[in-house]
Formats: sequence, structure tokens, C-alpha cells
Amino acid sequence: MFGKVYLIGVGLINGSLARDLKVRNLAEVVVGVGRSRQRLEGARTLGVVDEYCLLRDADVSDANLIVIGVPVGKTAEVLAAIRPSYRLDTLLTDVGSTKCSVIRAALEVFGELPPGFVPGHPIAGSELSGYEHAQENLFLDRKVILTPAGSTDAQALLRIRRMWQATGASVDELDAELHDRILSATSHLPHMVAYALVHYLGSRQDADHIFGYAASGFYDFTRIASSSPDMWEDICMANRGELLASLDGFAGLLETLRAMIAEGDGPQLHDFLGQAKRLRDSNSAR
Amino acid sequence: MFGKVYLIGVGLINGSLARDLKVRNLAEVVVGVGRSRQRLEGARTLGVVDEYCLLRDADVSDANLIVIGVPVGKTAEVLAAIRPSYRLDTLLTDVGSTKCSVIRAALEVFGELPPGFVPGHPIAGSELSGYEHAQENLFLDRKVILTPAGSTDAQALLRIRRMWQATGASVDELDAELHDRILSATSHLPHMVAYALVHYLGSRQDADHIFGYAASGFYDFTRIASSSPDMWEDICMANRGELLASLDGFAGLLETLRAMIAEGDGPQLHDFLGQAKRLRDSNSAR
Repeated sequence: MFGKVYLIGVGLINGSLARDLKVRNLAEVVVGVGRSRQRLEGARTLGVVDEYCLLRDADVSDANLIVIGVPVGKTAEVLAAIRPSYRLDTLLTDVGSTKCSVIRAALEVFGELPPGFVPGHPIAGSELSGYEHAQENLFLDRKVILTPAGSTDAQALLRIRRMWQATGASVDELDAELHDRILSATSHLPHMVAYALVHYLGSRQDADHIFGYAASGFYDFTRIASSSPDMWEDICMANRGELLASLDGFAGLLETLRAMIAEGDGPQLHDFLGQAKRLRDSNSAR
Repeated sequence: MFGKVYLIGVGLINGSLARDLKVRNLAEVVVGVGRSRQRLEGARTLGVVDEYCLLRDADVSDANLIVIGVPVGKTAEVLAAIRPSYRLDTLLTDVGSTKCSVIRAALEVFGELPPGFVPGHPIAGSELSGYEHAQENLFLDRKVILTPAGSTDAQALLRIRRMWQATGASVDELDAELHDRILSATSHLPHMVAYALVHYLGSRQDADHIFGYAASGFYDFTRIASSSPDMWEDICMANRGELLASLDGFAGLLETLRAMIAEGDGPQLHDFLGQAKRLRDSNSAR
């Protein structure tokens, strides 16, 4: 499918994509690009990538595909680093959790959106990070959202779509603004809530007792609070407006629930809990 | 270990205890007690209990052990129903998620705390409810908290402790107030947060899109919002004071986090996320 693929950033997502590209014979050569020679050497030793080079030395002029997989706040820096050797029609995509900020970064660096650029976001991953946790089939039965712009070449869009389909993912296209709005609610908000909850428990005077008496539900609930602070700092900053709106909406609902408890309104509380249960049950099978 | 055991309420917890009592030869006869003949008949058909009787007909005068496993708000009603045939030194325990309210119910019904009564709470379970989901070894490697009062007979306490240890659980003793305070934070608060989060997503104008683009982290995060509204209405009402304090403490932390995002204070935000990650990572192995 592809000759030479440059993966810029070899973390969990790009590392897992590398595994799929190789196992499924989708690429001839996978080149890891990053800032730490030690990390890149590690990725090559584990067989995640075939070759590597430092970002500052990267020459992507022979690339058939470039995939950016770095914390979204680093996107402009990465694009600036490859700009000298990047031809605007070379196939380029990214795996960032926010899409408007990535598109803004490309506009800043190139002055226009390259026709070969297809912004993307595989909705997959875990609280683990780094190529050490890369795994085959991470994208199997997952959704990948592509957010092409008017300037995106139709052929480029089709090729990125097919690449993700070849990993077993299903691919949807969304407007970048809609993507960021939806993900602020389904992903960014829950992460912030989990971080805040763990912080709250740790800040209590009885914190020493607290974690010893947490049930398995608690660990499932807060698993995402073990996610990478580097990645999440960037997501919060990149999608600040939508995230704040989601945080405020959620805080309002929590206040409504608090009032029902404070007033001792059992039947209303029961309705509230029951509605949430039905919503969750009817949507959890997807 | 026991001759005849009466399980009042045959849900997930009592049903799973019944399985362990039988598989591990801890009881000769397990009698299910409840309000629905159909449900009790179902539990007998599945082999969860050996016999059953309706709560209104229950005669527990030949009990060697009675375990109450109903939504905590029903405790007083259950105790009143068995009171005519209950001898105050018969071994009696419960599995309710709140302990002060259960103790208050016993005081109300009996006028004193029966010496045979050992309030208890196995920290186990799932979002599923009902004897249909009862399983062996649900308590294996889990914690059970007992909250005996000054009037509790030492021998009764020891026998309940040994019963739970025989299911593979480790048993701690706590003051009932401390139990309720700790659990308000580690269990009741996360449940309310999960219910509120699902409610919020369902209330958004883009709700139709929302659930389709939720990642697996979201489903783990909100799993506990599929828990029984009957059970959780009662827990909220029974532990209202501590739960409101925990909700307020959490809302304060969330507001702090919101301010960091709103101010665009990246380094402070990174510290906040990193602290939560370290707390979660260092406590998740327990």
C-alpha cells in the first residue's frame, strides 16, 4: 500500500500503527522520527520501526506517507521541522485528539492547508503511553474520525481512509469543529473528571484510609487519570473553549443531582439515576 | 460452620454469598427470604438457595445466621418483619453500603443493638444486580468492613469475621461513622459523578452523535452508572451528609482545575494532572 512511511513521534498510537503497517504488509519501510535518539533506538530494537532519524535531521522528501503522532501542542513544531523537505502533495495525516488546533498549526506553518494533509483521530488508546505498549490490532473495531478541509485532495482522503480500514477500523468524516465539540464531552471531560476525582481523594484528611477501601469500580473509573499529563495538558489547551463548555455543563448537572440529594427527594433522585442507567445501558453495546 | 442460614434479599451480594456458603460447605441449608415469590422461586431453580419463604411469613427462630442484603432503606422494614421470631443473640449481619443508617434502623426496631448483630459491608459487587448474576468467589481478595458497636458480642463478631475470611476476603473493623465517611468518597461520590456524566451527555443537543464516538475509556468510566437506582437512591438518602460533603469537595477541585484551563496555565495544569496520575498509579496495585 505504501513504500516508505515516516512516523513522527513513536508513542502508543504511532507505535501500534507501525505494528499494523508491518504485520498487514501495508508499508515497505517504517521510519521512526523523534527527538530522543535513545527512545528511537529502543523502538527499533523492539522491532516497532525499521529505521529512525532525529526530527531535526529528518528529510521526508522520499516519504509516501507521513503520520504525526505527538502531543497536539507540538504539531506546529513538527510541521516546521519537516517543512523544508515536505512536498505539499505528499500524503500527511495525524492522530491528534483535537483537530481545529492541528489545522491551525498547519495553516500557520504552510500558509495554506496542504492538499495532501488529512487530519485524523483514531478513537483508540489507553492510559498507557510509549511505543513499549504498542500493540497489534489496537484499531480493530474502533472508529477513526477524519476531518478533511475543502482543500484536502480527494485521493489523499481516500488513501488515508483505506489505510485505517486496513487496520480494522471504521472511518467517519466529521467537520473539525464538530469533532472537537463532541470529543470535549465524550473524552476530554471524563478525563478531567477522573483527574479531579483522584486529586480530591488524595487531598482529603483521611486520604491514608481512602485508597485502601476503594472497590474495583473505583479503579475502572479512575483508570484514565493515569493518562499522560503531557498529552492531556496539550489537549486541554488546544480545545479549551469546548472543554470549558463541557465542564460547565457537567458541573450544572452535578449541582442538579446535589440538590436532589440535599432536599431528600427520593423519587426525583430515583428518576435521575434510572434515566442515566437506561442511557448508559442502551449505548454501551456499541 | 453454620446449620441454617437465612438470606433476606437474594440479590447479587447475598446470591454470591449463598454460592460460596454452599460450594465451601459453610452452611447446611440456605433459605432465601424476600417479597417476590417469583424471584425466590427463580433463585431456587438456579440452585442459589435451597429453600425460600416470603418475608411476611418468615420464622427465623431456627436460624444459625441471618444475612440482610436489601437496599439499605429497607433495613428497618426487614428487621421489623423478623422481630417476632428473632432472638437477640442469634447471629445477624448485613451487607449494606452504609452503616450508620443500618445501625439506626436496628436501634429503632429493637430499642437496643442486639448483641448478635454485626453490621458489615463487603466491598465487592458490580453494576449488575440480582441473583442471576451471583457468582462464586465474588469476595475473593476483596475487603469486608465490619462496624461492631460496644454492645456487639465478641463471639458473634469473630464468627462473622471467620465467615468472610472463609470466602477469601480480608476483614477490617472500622467505626461506623468512619466507614460512611470513607465510602462517601471512594464509592458513593464516583457513582454520583458517573450518573451525572451520563446524564450530561444525554442532555446535550448533539447527544445523538455523542455516544457513537465514545471510546472504551468512557465505557469503563461510566460502567458504574449502570448500577441499580433502587440501591443508589437508598445509599444517597442514608449517607446524605457525608455524600454532600464529598460532592462539595470534589466540585471544588473541579473548579480549581477549570480555572487552570480557563487561565491557560499549562505548567500548573501539568502539575495537577501529574499529581493525580502519580496518586492513581501508586494506589492502583492494591
